Amino acid sequence: MLIVKKFGGTSVADKERILHVAGICAEEYSKGDDVVVVLSAMGKQTDVLLTQAEEINPNAPKREIDMLLTTGEQISVALMAMALESRGVPAISFHAFQAGIYTTRAYGNARIQRIDTARMEEALAQRKVVIVAGFQGISEEGDYTTLGRGGSDTTAVALAAVLKADVCEIFTDVDGVYTADPRLVPEAVKLKEITYDEMLELASLGAGVLHNRSVELAKRFGVELIVKSSFQNAEGTRVCDRTRKKETTHILEDGILKAAQSLEGTTMEEMLVSGVTADKNAARIQLKGIKETTKEMYKIFVKLSEQHIGADSVLMSPNSDNTTDISFTVPRDRLKETAEVLNLYSKEGSSDVEIKIEDKIAKVSAVGAGMMSNPAIAVSMFEALYEADITIEMIYASELRITVLVNEEDTLKAIRAIHGHLIERPLR
Amino acid sequence: MLIVKKFGGTSVADKERILHVAGICAEEYSKGDDVVVVLSAMGKQTDVLLTQAEEINPNAPKREIDMLLTTGEQISVALMAMALESRGVPAISFHAFQAGIYTTRAYGNARIQRIDTARMEEALAQRKVVIVAGFQGISEEGDYTTLGRGGSDTTAVALAAVLKADVCEIFTDVDGVYTADPRLVPEAVKLKEITYDEMLELASLGAGVLHNRSVELAKRFGVELIVKSSFQNAEGTRVCDRTRKKETTHILEDGILKAAQSLEGTTMEEMLVSGVTADKNAARIQLKGIKETTKEMYKIFVKLSEQHIGADSVLMSPNSDNTTDISFTVPRDRLKETAEVLNLYSKEGSSDVEIKIEDKIAKVSAVGAGMMSNPAIAVSMFEALYEADITIEMIYASELRITVLVNEEDTLKAIRAIHGHLIERPLR
Repeated sequence: MLIVKKFGGTSVADKERILHVAGICAEEYSKGDDVVVVLSAMGKQTDVLLTQAEEINPNAPKREIDMLLTTGEQISVALMAMALESRGVPAISFHAFQAGIYTTRAYGNARIQRIDTARMEEALAQRKVVIVAGFQGISEEGDYTTLGRGGSDTTAVALAAVLKADVCEIFTDVDGVYTADPRLVPEAVKLKEITYDEMLELASLGAGVLHNRSVELAKRFGVELIVKSSFQNAEGTRVCDRTRKKETTHILEDGILKAAQSLEGTTMEEMLVSGVTADKNAARIQLKGIKETTKEMYKIFVKLSEQHIGADSVLMSPNSDNTTDISFTVPRDRLKETAEVLNLYSKEGSSDVEIKIEDKIAKVSAVGAGMMSNPAIAVSMFEALYEADITIEMIYASELRITVLVNEEDTLKAIRAIHGHLIERPLR
Repeated sequence: MLIVKKFGGTSVADKERILHVAGICAEEYSKGDDVVVVLSAMGKQTDVLLTQAEEINPNAPKREIDMLLTTGEQISVALMAMALESRGVPAISFHAFQAGIYTTRAYGNARIQRIDTARMEEALAQRKVVIVAGFQGISEEGDYTTLGRGGSDTTAVALAAVLKADVCEIFTDVDGVYTADPRLVPEAVKLKEITYDEMLELASLGAGVLHNRSVELAKRFGVELIVKSSFQNAEGTRVCDRTRKKETTHILEDGILKAAQSLEGTTMEEMLVSGVTADKNAARIQLKGIKETTKEMYKIFVKLSEQHIGADSVLMSPNSDNTTDISFTVPRDRLKETAEVLNLYSKEGSSDVEIKIEDKIAKVSAVGAGMMSNPAIAVSMFEALYEADITIEMIYASELRITVLVNEEDTLKAIRAIHGHLIERPLR
């Protein structure tokens, strides 16, 4: 077996954590498995370095930022190699030059293009544990790049894909994917399995366990992911494409959503709704009275896309006077840029369009396969919100999720209500 | 003009220092010069990293130690590039892979073998300031190596040699080479010039301004060095091979050592003794009653050399019974290994040799060109020590220096006395 194990910053935050992680890897190695370890920078090191850069030059060249940040992972991998060697396990650390991780030249947000696995395979053949600096790559020019936040997950999945690993384990500070954030919803339960698609919705909607990009990559290359804790020895959640269509259909035929008999160790066989999640990094944009809808929408969304602003949950509603209202959400931290785009749009002759921006909102979503096919879910969700006296500002539904916009202060109440109705108790 | 500027750890210890150094480099650049900057790790960063490694694995593989340490300089160069860019000066940072600094595989103490200057020359042609991580190299296998302590000086001199720089400026926390340590001898004066050979003696004898290896390299490739302060704008000391034979001869013909008319800005034209220095990292070994001198000495020194213990100031004195006494010094921090070598030597059948080890001694030296040719210098030096009531344990003299061993507690008194006689006041 070849296993890729990825550990995030909190898992290697200090000496004790590094030695603990070395123990986990040594145990795997001693089973006879080949082990590739991908590490993030220790604790908050990346933020510390960014602050240093900011103090010296608030507009530092991105090439130099990446040159600076890549030291973080290099420290982690060197110390981990030392920790493994101290346990008698042969190990070798590689930074991006040595691991041959070639990317585009987009400093700060590079994409992996190819991986030259020669040195890694040579070291694995020598029965060494290979420790690779996550988050970093090199451009064809031989400059460091970084993959953006969540980049170490991407490194791990990419290595698992090219090295044809049997599994890619993502160790984090939670022990798996839950039906809701357990800090917010004590009744939340851990999922044994979840599909790539559901995981993608949960990630993009703010669950924060895995970065979207790594899940997309895993899906594309069929890399089996396991999310588990480096702090405790628990089973974790498997992310794969094994949808249990048959059982789901069975439940749907009953016309009701059957909740889990026993919540402990719940799997997808028993539950349709995988999780409830909230994203407070959201703002709602409303454009009222648009005349030539298609043309105008094109103009707006092209401009947003040029600024790399991702619009989500787009809704259109026609008015009786042949105009259309458009509503969508943007990440709240991109609201400034969004407002600039919209102001420009107004000035360019569409001044009769009324623009409304709301930033005290949150997106609360229920995620699961075949949500729209089962009207009972939507009904139950709205019932939950109604009973909790929460005003729904907007509804967006797709095959994989139902999202409602609520006032920000209602976020927690909404999550708990929806979780209670859709996951904890059986529907009528 | 192409100028290599090297700044040590204290010169880039924090944000303020980095911005200050960027100012020095920007000024040079704005004159139209091409500038290559070589940096050490910030402040005590290397020691901090070594402590981290030690805590995780006291016997960490040297490859991984170098992998860890090289992050220190990478942080410095990235931040410096940002600092220069913030002043509108185009800059680019390179680590050893990018600067093409290939070394032997001796982790922790590698030797530079060749430098692939392509990327540096390309950047210089684009009128960029090139900022190179000092102290580090790469092996032909593509692993990081480090050049040992003082390695950043070596990097700077090597780059100056291969890039055919007009001058290599070593910025440090003192403003030049002094006739003695100004903290110990307030009367010490800064030298305008000094030869490579004199500098080598001063460096190896503990003056500590420049590392020996970098001076040797500079001598071999004719790289003109200037030692100056990054903290104050003063002229510094030039290290080169321009010995002023004619003037020196003139002085020698007078039969006396003429001290400087004005001590401010003293040059070699006026002074024969360049400096007085002390090295407390010394221990004295005496072997008494050796019979077959040549054979036995060979045995001892081969063994010491195998342990990389540098014996210095070797003296032999024949006894009337056809035996010989040998005396030499070793670095005190290698005394343990030295004692092991000598014990082994005793056991192997030379047990009638009496071994004496003294570790409370210091080597005090006066350095200058043609010391032995001028008996007045030795006479004056011994007079100084006599007047100061200091016991001389051993004397060693070469063309470039006269070294006396004194009791450790007499070190400062000896330096001051010799400095007073040889440098401050004219000899009779």
